[in-house]
Formats: sequence, C-alpha cells, structure tokens
Amino acid sequence: MSEIANTTTTPYYAVIFTSHRTEGDKGYSEIAARMVELASQQPAFLGVESVCESVGITVSYWADLESIKAWKDNAEHIIAQERGKEEWYSEYKTRIAKVERDYS
Amino acid sequence: MSEIANTTTTPYYAVIFTSHRTEGDKGYSEIAARMVELASQQPAFLGVESVCESVGITVSYWADLESIKAWKDNAEHIIAQERGKEEWYSEYKTRIAKVERDYS
Repeated sequence: MSEIANTTTTPYYAVIFTSHRTEGDKGYSEIAARMVELASQQPAFLGVESVCESVGITVSYWADLESIKAWKDNAEHIIAQERGKEEWYSEYKTRIAKVERDYS
Repeated sequence: MSEIANTTTTPYYAVIFTSHRTEGDKGYSEIAARMVELASQQPAFLGVESVCESVGITVSYWADLESIKAWKDNAEHIIAQERGKEEWYSEYKTRIAKVERDYS
C-alpha cells in the first residue's frame, strides 16, 4: 500500500477517500488489508495509494465508473463499509473523480 | 492540514500529488507549510488534504482548471517545485481530476 500506483493512460477514475479515524484499531487494519487484496482482484482496478495517520487518505484508481459501482456493492466490502461508519471513522468523505491528465 | 476539506458542490477539480520522500527534511516542512498558506490565498482554491509519511498524498481542490494552471505557474511555487524535484522527492506523480460526485 505504500507505492505510487502505476496507472494506465488517461482518462481513468480516482476514488478519493478521506477519513478521520476513531481511537483504537477495532479490527480496522486486518479488514483494510483484506479490502485492498479484494479490490485488487476486481476488473478495471488500476491501483491504490494510501497513507494513514489520524487522518487517512486512500486513493484507488479504476478504468471505468461501472467497476467503481460494482466494488461499492461488493458484499464483503459492504460489511466493511458498515463497520467503518459505525466503528472506525468519526468523519469521512468519498469523492469520485475523472483523472484527465497526469505526469511524473 | 489535517482536516477533511469542506469543498463546494460538484463538479470541481482535484490535484492528487503522490510522492516518495528522500531522506531528511532539507527545508521541506517549512516550504510545504508556506505552499499551503500561499495556495489558500489563490482564487478558486477550495481546500487541501495531506498526509505525509515516507509516502505522501496531498489532494488540493479547485473550482476550475485555469486556477490550477495559475497556481502551477506561481513564481514562489515554481521554486518549490524545482526543490522538490531536486531534493525532496525520489519519485512523484501528479494527477488532475474532475470530481463528479462526492458524499460524506
């Protein structure tokens, strides 16, 4: 989770998930790692970048919007989302964005 | 720099800057804080979210693409960009994205 994602040529999509964590792990780390593993197996998944202190930013990259929707509706991911709302995050925001240009 | 940005209604733009830091501070922290201060004074600037460990993710939000271009060409920012390339980052990637949807 600590690499710069090797994304494809533009356009593609970014899901920017920013959160304030609550105190304590409460199973977060294990499920977060599992979600990255599971997302990586989805079609059109291009990569993920994540940094987490008390504030976390995770940006995942996808080839199309349909795959983002399918990932949001993934059964195991839904359970993780619910635990996130109830236990792990005091506040969060998700943004769906179309990456139009990139450069290194 | 540790808050979730209180952005406006969509669409707006996100600049996703992901980087690997080199060893040592080398003036980075001071200039990084100055760049956030300076960006905040630019027209159409909407907010910034930043987390920095050995990998850093900074997402700044803007109302339009013209303002992103103007900020990229800001004289003091150009000097900081050059120091970043030469001293602070072993690798980085910048992505310009249009935020089409968001939810909390």
